Amino acid sequence: VLGTARRGATFLLNAPFAATEVWDHLPRRVQATILERDLDVWVVDAERVASECGLGRRINTVMQACFFAIASGVPMTRARQWLSASIDHAYGKRGDDVVERNIAAVDAAVDALEHVMVPSALTARESQHMTVPPEAPVFVRSVTAPLLEGHGDALPVSALPADGTFPTGTARYEKRGIAPTIPIWDPSICIDCGKCTIVCPHAAIRMKIYEPDALTDAPEGFPTKSFRSRELPDRWLTIQVSPDDCTGCGVCVEVCPAHAKDDANHFALALEPYAEHRGVEAVRWDFFLGLPELTPDVVAADNVKTSQLLPPRFEFSGACAGCGETPYLKLLTQLFGDRLVIANATGCSSIYGGNLPTTPWSTDKHGRGPAWANSLFEDNAEFGLGLKLAAEFREHSARALLEQLAPTVGKPFSAAILDADQSSEVGIHEQRERVERLLNVLLAHPSEDAMRLADVAHDLVRRSLWIVGGDGWAYDIGSGGVDHVLGSGRDVNLLVLDSQVYSNTGGQASKATPRGVVAKFAASGKRTAKKDLGLEAMSYGDVYVAQIALGGSDIQTVKALLEADAWPGPSLVIAYSSCVPAHGFAECDSMNRQRDAVHSGMWPLFRYRPAAGEDQHPFSLDSHAPTLTVRDFAAGEERFAMLGRSNPALADELLELAQDDVNERWHLYEQLAGIERSLHG
Amino acid sequence: VLGTARRGATFLLNAPFAATEVWDHLPRRVQATILERDLDVWVVDAERVASECGLGRRINTVMQACFFAIASGVPMTRARQWLSASIDHAYGKRGDDVVERNIAAVDAAVDALEHVMVPSALTARESQHMTVPPEAPVFVRSVTAPLLEGHGDALPVSALPADGTFPTGTARYEKRGIAPTIPIWDPSICIDCGKCTIVCPHAAIRMKIYEPDALTDAPEGFPTKSFRSRELPDRWLTIQVSPDDCTGCGVCVEVCPAHAKDDANHFALALEPYAEHRGVEAVRWDFFLGLPELTPDVVAADNVKTSQLLPPRFEFSGACAGCGETPYLKLLTQLFGDRLVIANATGCSSIYGGNLPTTPWSTDKHGRGPAWANSLFEDNAEFGLGLKLAAEFREHSARALLEQLAPTVGKPFSAAILDADQSSEVGIHEQRERVERLLNVLLAHPSEDAMRLADVAHDLVRRSLWIVGGDGWAYDIGSGGVDHVLGSGRDVNLLVLDSQVYSNTGGQASKATPRGVVAKFAASGKRTAKKDLGLEAMSYGDVYVAQIALGGSDIQTVKALLEADAWPGPSLVIAYSSCVPAHGFAECDSMNRQRDAVHSGMWPLFRYRPAAGEDQHPFSLDSHAPTLTVRDFAAGEERFAMLGRSNPALADELLELAQDDVNERWHLYEQLAGIERSLHG
Repeated sequence: VLGTARRGATFLLNAPFAATEVWDHLPRRVQATILERDLDVWVVDAERVASECGLGRRINTVMQACFFAIASGVPMTRARQWLSASIDHAYGKRGDDVVERNIAAVDAAVDALEHVMVPSALTARESQHMTVPPEAPVFVRSVTAPLLEGHGDALPVSALPADGTFPTGTARYEKRGIAPTIPIWDPSICIDCGKCTIVCPHAAIRMKIYEPDALTDAPEGFPTKSFRSRELPDRWLTIQVSPDDCTGCGVCVEVCPAHAKDDANHFALALEPYAEHRGVEAVRWDFFLGLPELTPDVVAADNVKTSQLLPPRFEFSGACAGCGETPYLKLLTQLFGDRLVIANATGCSSIYGGNLPTTPWSTDKHGRGPAWANSLFEDNAEFGLGLKLAAEFREHSARALLEQLAPTVGKPFSAAILDADQSSEVGIHEQRERVERLLNVLLAHPSEDAMRLADVAHDLVRRSLWIVGGDGWAYDIGSGGVDHVLGSGRDVNLLVLDSQVYSNTGGQASKATPRGVVAKFAASGKRTAKKDLGLEAMSYGDVYVAQIALGGSDIQTVKALLEADAWPGPSLVIAYSSCVPAHGFAECDSMNRQRDAVHSGMWPLFRYRPAAGEDQHPFSLDSHAPTLTVRDFAAGEERFAMLGRSNPALADELLELAQDDVNERWHLYEQLAGIERSLHG
Repeated sequence: VLGTARRGATFLLNAPFAATEVWDHLPRRVQATILERDLDVWVVDAERVASECGLGRRINTVMQACFFAIASGVPMTRARQWLSASIDHAYGKRGDDVVERNIAAVDAAVDALEHVMVPSALTARESQHMTVPPEAPVFVRSVTAPLLEGHGDALPVSALPADGTFPTGTARYEKRGIAPTIPIWDPSICIDCGKCTIVCPHAAIRMKIYEPDALTDAPEGFPTKSFRSRELPDRWLTIQVSPDDCTGCGVCVEVCPAHAKDDANHFALALEPYAEHRGVEAVRWDFFLGLPELTPDVVAADNVKTSQLLPPRFEFSGACAGCGETPYLKLLTQLFGDRLVIANATGCSSIYGGNLPTTPWSTDKHGRGPAWANSLFEDNAEFGLGLKLAAEFREHSARALLEQLAPTVGKPFSAAILDADQSSEVGIHEQRERVERLLNVLLAHPSEDAMRLADVAHDLVRRSLWIVGGDGWAYDIGSGGVDHVLGSGRDVNLLVLDSQVYSNTGGQASKATPRGVVAKFAASGKRTAKKDLGLEAMSYGDVYVAQIALGGSDIQTVKALLEADAWPGPSLVIAYSSCVPAHGFAECDSMNRQRDAVHSGMWPLFRYRPAAGEDQHPFSLDSHAPTLTVRDFAAGEERFAMLGRSNPALADELLELAQDDVNERWHLYEQLAGIERSLHG
């Protein structure tokens, strides 16, 4: 940041340290530059000021005020006028309250600003700053690191992968340390439920169970407790945060249901200052990573708790703090991680999923993990179907070759592979081992056909193909392709991360946007109802369809993803994706908003199972009749509240219509589920 | 056809005349060429042979056999072997019966082939053959005619319209005279129902009513009867065929419900040989065209009979004989012809709708009629929406200008225009007259704003915008756009001509293809169920949706089109379009197939009316519970029967699943209609 500073320049630093302390916290390189160029240094704890003024973590007003306070040539009275006008323009729509809080922050910022008396000597220890740790793979050190440093233009073309395939698991090398507070675990209260880890948008809080002797080399005070489980007895449990990967959103703390018997405000997780805990927790995290990992053939990941015992293969993405989308993707990797193939449409998920040069998609120690590729808004469903057809063709070739080579590899062995039951993770694990054995046999009896079979043998192991994207893709730009793939009868899974708006491009309305919401292209409130994508898919009859919301029912979410994977035809899972910037709520409330969306009937949970027996209704309505009104729900989000301020009469009318939408849809769903209307009055 | 004949060449003619008679039926030009080049002439009545062999009007086998019989160098025994093999290859899939009939036709053809003894002199009268009649407009004579003659390459670029706009109503200049038989009307039996004219695919049979004195100059024997109507008393009725535009499909005769009291086989319409009746009927047709036309403000076209009193503005297209699509388009022009705007997707309808150089879309004597344009498969819905948005913008401009110019044009007059009730045809007619008056006022008080208003004044008259295409467009390639337009809330109408297959490109399966049908890309039977486009549209809540079948209920068809036009939001009408070549049935059965599709429950008729009152179910199920099984229905069409021959077990299985589809859908529709299941058992 000091690269372009001129001699005698002014340097404003946002740091949680007083002017008298901040010098010792600066890296040696920064101290040296300040001294060499004789910089004028100022410090402000902008996060504290913003928080005290009710702005949460939004520090822009604070930093602007400090800028004008120390910029030469602009009197502060004049600057205050400019800032007030700018605040009014930017936040007027969001209400008087927001405007007043920002204006208050201007003065508070100037009060909190401190001039740093720069000492005459370096005090920081000599250290070579490393963008990535020295133990990182060669590619990461030689290509990823220069790209991260902004020196990608200095790399030769030959350094880049010729086929566009980048190594996975690289987001872990971008330690950001942006959380002002991090969750600290109290094992004495924890009930082992796994709710904290399933909701974490960044895979920054994890749980592992292990046998007691795994703790032999544990750092002092490493927290642990005995794990309650009949199936996995005599194990110990640790829940651990990665302090430098956590964003401090607090969603894990919000969902934690376990409080002390004698204190209803003392939960098993609490947010504590990063600065105080970072050192200890970073050491614990490193040790935690080394604890053995469980695999899906050992743990039946059929509920929230057990799913969280499996390691995620989607970790430390650059998604926003409190993101409502990423937990679904992380869960997919816990359930199907070692056989997952993802076709990802353009949108937030393509950005945080493949934000060159790093990616959060990662692998296990065998190198198995999700294979991920991104295609366009307008063709991602077709792209994913193409991946499926190619895999089917390869599997078909492998089966034909194996039948042909049965005399060589042994008839019982080839039959075992061809007839393998891969409906369970255990079955898949066994098939994978058979294929490894087969490869050894083929290498021992090389022939042209044997080599062709070796090339496609891995396609004999069942995969889980997911076509992923947001509502801008599934409801709008790619809807034709989505519909075509749903109508194809093929064994593919579609996951729609439905944030009800084009989140990534800045909040344009999509056909998934509910009535009454303010969005771009719907600046005076969306007039039409949200499209019912689930009903469209159900009308095919052979499509598994689920509507889920992790914050509404985590157990239904796990169940739906497992059922979708298991159904041998097309599956569609529509996942409520709370979005902090586009919906307008506090980061920590991400799952609370999902819960309220379900409770208001705005987002009914359901599963349509084409495999249901003759005597069962294929349609199962998984949430209860609404207990909140649409108005109650809308009151909690800026996207609705904005219209209430700018045009109260219209907001009123649209919310009434939105309530009608909910009532009618609920009635229809009850009919589909075979629930007698009279039961509900 | 004789342009490239060399001296002494062999000339094979298909004609309904014996060798001794045919010479006198040839045009003088043809006679001259035969004599000059000393041609060897043969004649066969291929249509008679084909018909007698049970091949209907398919003459290709007959003509091939004759070709080999007279081609030098190939012994007929050898040729017979080739032909048999070729027939087996081409028709094997269609069953032994079809193969045998074709093989029989080979011998019958050779037997029927006659050598013509060419006289030594011209006997035909001198006549200049005219491609188009001399009374045709200049453009038609100077541009259309050379294009029709195949001499388009000789036209200068400057002769073609610079903006791509072609004159309408030009298909009437392509007199084809291809019908072997034409319908002849018996006024003594007719009950004035209009069923014959509403089903005619080519607008070749019409009805008109008129006051008795209109017959003053009628040709002798011009058939007429008194018209039964309380609203339009003292009128006379004529039903008249255009012999040279009729294709002889016989659909009109099939649907005629009126038979003689003493003879149940003697109907008001009967097919009679073209050759015997052409002369008289052509004269009658010319006179019929001159009878006065009624307009929609005079006749309330709210049922089948009255709709048929209005002139069609879609006439003599090149669609196949028995086409199930064109009657819907023709009906649209009868209901809304003078204010119709059509955006037409690629497909059969874009070909027969704009088959350069002619088009069947035509106008009234004021030049008012449908404005038609064709866009792509993949963007036609968006194209139509764009036309609508442009019209809305122009109307908005016109209203603003009119308000501004109110002092000039007179306040009561401008208010009358701005507040006009255009919900009825009478109201639209009055508004059109007001706009004509307005234009006169503006011309009398010219100003810049007045000229701007004059430019957009016609947009103050209500239009009816229809976005038209087939199932390949609406269910597949353009489905994303269709869905987006349905979700737009705008006042547009979509008409899907659902032939359940890509008819125009040769019969590829679409998502509209029912389970069990054989089509390209589904050569071994379509495995998945037909997509329910209606349900997708209904799920929006504010879309008017109707599923219609002219042959199932003509009155429901008329009602649905009128309601769709009247609904001020998006409307979707899905029209069953029987397709002779793609479904495989006799031309005359086009409407019978539609009737049976409805009776089997394969095509339930319904209307979803968002405007329904609080106490009404918006969903109205307009057809009765199925009385035919899917199997009964399937037995009547080649597209199903083909699978029964090639793979009876699979056909059986798929038809059973198709029956399940029908039962489940019917149950759902009953639920939607609020019909108690118990009523139906």
